[in-house]
Amino acid sequence: MIEPFSKAEWSRKSWVESANEAGCGFPMQSLPYCIFADEEGRARTGVGIGAFVLDLRWCRGAGLLDGLPGPLLAACEAKTLNALLGCGSVAHAGLRNRLMDLLDAEAEEATREAVGAALIAKETATLLKPVESANYTDFYASIHHATRVGRLFRPENPLLPNYKFVPIGYHGRASSVVVSGTPVRRPHGQTRPPEAGGEPAWGPTQFLDYEVEVGLYIGDGNPLGEPIGIRQAGEHIFGISLLNDWSARDMQVWESQPLGPFLAKSFATSVSAWVVPMAALAPFRYPLTLHHPDDPSPLKYLFDGWDQYGGAIDLTVGAWLLTSVMRAAGEAPHRLSEGSLMDLYWTPAQLVAHHTSNGCNLLPGDLLGTGTISGREDESAGCLLELTAGGKKPILLPNGETRGALEDGDEVILRGFCRREGFPDVSLGECRGVVVRAV
Amino acid sequence: MIEPFSKAEWSRKSWVESANEAGCGFPMQSLPYCIFADEEGRARTGVGIGAFVLDLRWCRGAGLLDGLPGPLLAACEAKTLNALLGCGSVAHAGLRNRLMDLLDAEAEEATREAVGAALIAKETATLLKPVESANYTDFYASIHHATRVGRLFRPENPLLPNYKFVPIGYHGRASSVVVSGTPVRRPHGQTRPPEAGGEPAWGPTQFLDYEVEVGLYIGDGNPLGEPIGIRQAGEHIFGISLLNDWSARDMQVWESQPLGPFLAKSFATSVSAWVVPMAALAPFRYPLTLHHPDDPSPLKYLFDGWDQYGGAIDLTVGAWLLTSVMRAAGEAPHRLSEGSLMDLYWTPAQLVAHHTSNGCNLLPGDLLGTGTISGREDESAGCLLELTAGGKKPILLPNGETRGALEDGDEVILRGFCRREGFPDVSLGECRGVVVRAV
Repeated sequence: MIEPFSKAEWSRKSWVESANEAGCGFPMQSLPYCIFADEEGRARTGVGIGAFVLDLRWCRGAGLLDGLPGPLLAACEAKTLNALLGCGSVAHAGLRNRLMDLLDAEAEEATREAVGAALIAKETATLLKPVESANYTDFYASIHHATRVGRLFRPENPLLPNYKFVPIGYHGRASSVVVSGTPVRRPHGQTRPPEAGGEPAWGPTQFLDYEVEVGLYIGDGNPLGEPIGIRQAGEHIFGISLLNDWSARDMQVWESQPLGPFLAKSFATSVSAWVVPMAALAPFRYPLTLHHPDDPSPLKYLFDGWDQYGGAIDLTVGAWLLTSVMRAAGEAPHRLSEGSLMDLYWTPAQLVAHHTSNGCNLLPGDLLGTGTISGREDESAGCLLELTAGGKKPILLPNGETRGALEDGDEVILRGFCRREGFPDVSLGECRGVVVRAV
Repeated sequence: MIEPFSKAEWSRKSWVESANEAGCGFPMQSLPYCIFADEEGRARTGVGIGAFVLDLRWCRGAGLLDGLPGPLLAACEAKTLNALLGCGSVAHAGLRNRLMDLLDAEAEEATREAVGAALIAKETATLLKPVESANYTDFYASIHHATRVGRLFRPENPLLPNYKFVPIGYHGRASSVVVSGTPVRRPHGQTRPPEAGGEPAWGPTQFLDYEVEVGLYIGDGNPLGEPIGIRQAGEHIFGISLLNDWSARDMQVWESQPLGPFLAKSFATSVSAWVVPMAALAPFRYPLTLHHPDDPSPLKYLFDGWDQYGGAIDLTVGAWLLTSVMRAAGEAPHRLSEGSLMDLYWTPAQLVAHHTSNGCNLLPGDLLGTGTISGREDESAGCLLELTAGGKKPILLPNGETRGALEDGDEVILRGFCRREGFPDVSLGECRGVVVRAV
């Protein structure tokens, strides 16, 4: 369901001036969480506000968080956000309200002074991996992605018969999830033999790709054997981030039958450093409409009524490319594509309800990827596999370079934001990764 | 490679008489690790010896482990085996040697007395989940399983072209791995529409199955981006256990295209409570022979030379069924099948080398399943899908009951052991699970 939100809350301004600028993306209504390294390199919990990171450990020490629940206060001193995510929605709302009061333009001078001492300039802060996800699941929620990729392999029958009933997903590799900025080493692997019956090739992948996705972080989990109903499912999502599901397409096509992708994905998955809480997305939630009037109704366990079906998020995500030639020439990254989370066939709540429908237990901090976010138009495709028609139609970059696949030195930059007339933009920040040559 | 072992070590006897009995399965050369609940219900690290569990925390407190590395001693007081697994092979060998000396028939009277105080009768000990695996991967290493299952769906072309080159595997769900004895709730799920284009059915699975597997626990891991070579791969495996990869076949066949199994597996995976260290398996290791003379040589990164190719394990595993009718009548479990780890196409070392060949990082305690262990003969098939030809030929049980799939109240019991003339049997214990009715 779609939670109501307060217009008054969304018109508040902060004494942190940079947070009030229209395009800053980090208004006082967002307050995304992060883990950053302090001067001694120790991991600390922080919150983004305007051009700053607010040090929550410092806030606690200064008594600014007094009265909030003990486990929440302890979680503000942890080295990852895992404990914080598991504190429950009441505690999360309490912390959000307290931080908004501390940052409010009407706050007293003494409060401003105390909080001001806990602000670190964002550009000087090193952001670390925010959550150690015990489990990472990747979905396939864009029907446009599924159709366009399916067309490459089955032109006559691109979309499989289960697609409009089953939110297709698979278990990903949790250990190789890395934070934005971590270089991504080109993997070795087997690829399909040039001739049927021959020996497969072995070497660095020749078709390295990115996938634009959004990651959903689980807050409260569920016990094994106890599914989460569709109406409760949204409450189990703490927040979201950007996610790049790096893929070695030539390895993937050879290894994936019959059990799905494995080494083609498990060499690296990048996540952005900010976890934007769902509370920050309230004005950007809309009912999801069916993809097509002939589409079947969702099965009962995935359906919460036509009046408020879904709770989709109007979030724009895009991918930019910066090649080493462009970097050397001081050029800006080139936008490859832009898409919207509204284009997905399934909502975040449906992904959670489906995931637990068999009794599977989710843990606080578990990460769910949406799958590649691609729209109907070819220009909104969220990966090179689609944009280049399987590598056959390389992209021409403004500087004359072409790309059918990622090359060493290429940096992929994902960006995401919510925008609505009368509301401040809410940014997901960036998710960056440079491809480095194979071992 | 196959590690040498000392015949003298394997002829040692213990003052714990029950450990010297031929069929006990827990001789002083095995010393499998476990986590058990003490009288106050606290999790403690233990080691199996004959009819007893040796309390390692008590041993440490009594000074019996003095001189061993500090991290190892701390790990002996942990609530899971994770820290112990990450201590490295030198520390593991040190602990094994010390325990063998403490338990040796030649040990001094004072030692026997001190150690005797740390022995708990196995039948009174509650065994807990031994390892919290951060990541669980499931392979598909039995060519007989792959062929027999493939035949159900593609009679003319059962084995896919990648099988003899790629150790096929996929990421499993780590959060729902449970210890032997945990009831397994029948999951709900979608199944294929009765007619093409129709709506899928939704409800409790009608084809619940088990899969006989062996689990490999990782000791030392590897950093992201640094593959483990085939000659080093074996050293990264700490030990093994039994594993039941419960499967809902009707859900699996509907959901698995194109990304592989998901909810059909993630409702539960059972592991046995004992982790048998690789050191206990040394006399039972053999080179792997090719499945067929025409089979291709493994690719270089999976091949460590014909002279010592593989390091397969001569381990017999079987599945027994105890229905609620049999239980009420006091009947013994009925053996459904028996197979051997020698029948796998890939060795444990090859699975590790392949898994990390793209740079994927393994962590201490990570769990790798072999995949269903099925032999060439139909009677050695390790799951009902094979034994009943997809449910079409139900099994007749001795009491007149039939089974095409598991029913509520059915208990599946996996057992595994190594046997070799002139050596004591080494047992993996049991992995049990009762099916309970859907929510």
